[in-house]
Amino acid sequence: MERIEHRACFGGWQDVYRHRSHALDCEMRLAVYLPPQASERPVPALYWLSGLTCTEQNFINKAGAQRYAAEHGLALVVCDTSPRGEGVADAAAYDLGMGAGFYVNATVSPWSRHYRMYDYVVHELPELVEKHCPLTDARAISGHSMGGHGALTIALKNPGRYGSVSAFSPIVAPSRVPWGEQAFSAYLGGDRETWRSYDATELVKTANEKLPLLIDQGDADEFLHSQLHPEWLQQAADAAGHPLELRMRPGYDHSYYFVASFIGEHVAYHAAALRR
Amino acid sequence: MERIEHRACFGGWQDVYRHRSHALDCEMRLAVYLPPQASERPVPALYWLSGLTCTEQNFINKAGAQRYAAEHGLALVVCDTSPRGEGVADAAAYDLGMGAGFYVNATVSPWSRHYRMYDYVVHELPELVEKHCPLTDARAISGHSMGGHGALTIALKNPGRYGSVSAFSPIVAPSRVPWGEQAFSAYLGGDRETWRSYDATELVKTANEKLPLLIDQGDADEFLHSQLHPEWLQQAADAAGHPLELRMRPGYDHSYYFVASFIGEHVAYHAAALRR
Repeated sequence: MERIEHRACFGGWQDVYRHRSHALDCEMRLAVYLPPQASERPVPALYWLSGLTCTEQNFINKAGAQRYAAEHGLALVVCDTSPRGEGVADAAAYDLGMGAGFYVNATVSPWSRHYRMYDYVVHELPELVEKHCPLTDARAISGHSMGGHGALTIALKNPGRYGSVSAFSPIVAPSRVPWGEQAFSAYLGGDRETWRSYDATELVKTANEKLPLLIDQGDADEFLHSQLHPEWLQQAADAAGHPLELRMRPGYDHSYYFVASFIGEHVAYHAAALRR
Repeated sequence: MERIEHRACFGGWQDVYRHRSHALDCEMRLAVYLPPQASERPVPALYWLSGLTCTEQNFINKAGAQRYAAEHGLALVVCDTSPRGEGVADAAAYDLGMGAGFYVNATVSPWSRHYRMYDYVVHELPELVEKHCPLTDARAISGHSMGGHGALTIALKNPGRYGSVSAFSPIVAPSRVPWGEQAFSAYLGGDRETWRSYDATELVKTANEKLPLLIDQGDADEFLHSQLHPEWLQQAADAAGHPLELRMRPGYDHSYYFVASFIGEHVAYHAAALRR
């Protein structure tokens, strides 16, 4: 890991690193916010997964989460949304290829060589940052939109690995909406059975560990009725007896102004969960 | 004023408008954050002046100020940093022309036709937003870098117009540093006597209204010793008996991570001043 940005922020440090990823077979960038407490002891970490078109920069620039992370002594670990670079497969669409990895392991050529964001986020990323930064192995995970999908599915698929999970405006049923259908068709192929293992509404039906799900969703979100449908996850969770708190926020849209408005509550939620 | 963005944020609204500016003779964009209190009564406003290369977007995306504005019932009014558009004079350098208006009224061709940011900020902008938005005429002013220069000079030149003023990492003596020398030579011409009326270290020597100046400055700021020199303003203010609080912040640089870390203290400061 080579540090390429190092900026004082709310008494801690907002850093950006680049490193060679084994899982993705390319150079990647990642951001780590270390709160002031990390200068004295290892701290737990909230992993943040961003939405379509984002890099590691959007969340650290726009969400204002560092203030709350500093208050609660929580690190923030933020990765990119796909492999990048020359030789990495891409598509003209903003919602496929670079910037749109969907946190899966692609199985179909040409995507399967680099697009292994699931392995990267679940395994390589925590190993890397826990080795190089003063972090404990207590982890929470959250994300926005495509990253909300990533956070929910990764938490549901890895019982015991995350102490808490939350999401903003998540794609809860990628198998049934245009964004997910396009991405899964490309990355996973046409057999929809294989899609189920990356679909939160499917995973919640059989999750043994009943890790509570916390979701914030704006009711003026321009993608609510076409791509998001949080009520589908609510129905599946209710049927399975899986705890889910879905908070509809009147007037809020899909932007980072929405994330910024409520990220403080999520950071507090994760900090409390990781203290238990 | 035509509203082109309208996003819920911390219980209020982050709006962006475009309008035809008479002072600048071009179309301009400006941002207004209305806190929740503005739905019930007119609120006072903090005017924010941004630094080199910025538009009306940087501060509203990156500073996280809306949270504090919502807490204190203060509106935020944010303008662009220069005239824009086809036919507006420009230069190849990032620190001259578009994105670098320096909050002066240019007197030298080709700049003098559009580059009248001083008149725009002091007169047209408050008239416009106070007419169209639920604002009182209680005003505070602040800014970053070039915008810190703008805030200090505009407050010093207009006694009674602003209830309080502050700045982050301001250019306090543009007449004596490369950024200011280049801009003032172009916009105002070679007679350095005319530059004094836009130089805070000069203005503070003769200011009759002793409006206190509040400045935050990072001591790891990469421009501190080449472009900023807050100690020059400190010396001039001390000699003139003008109150100035200069807070050096260890480890902080020139970025918006610095602004974000302390904007809460500035919003609270202005809110308290405007309540008096």
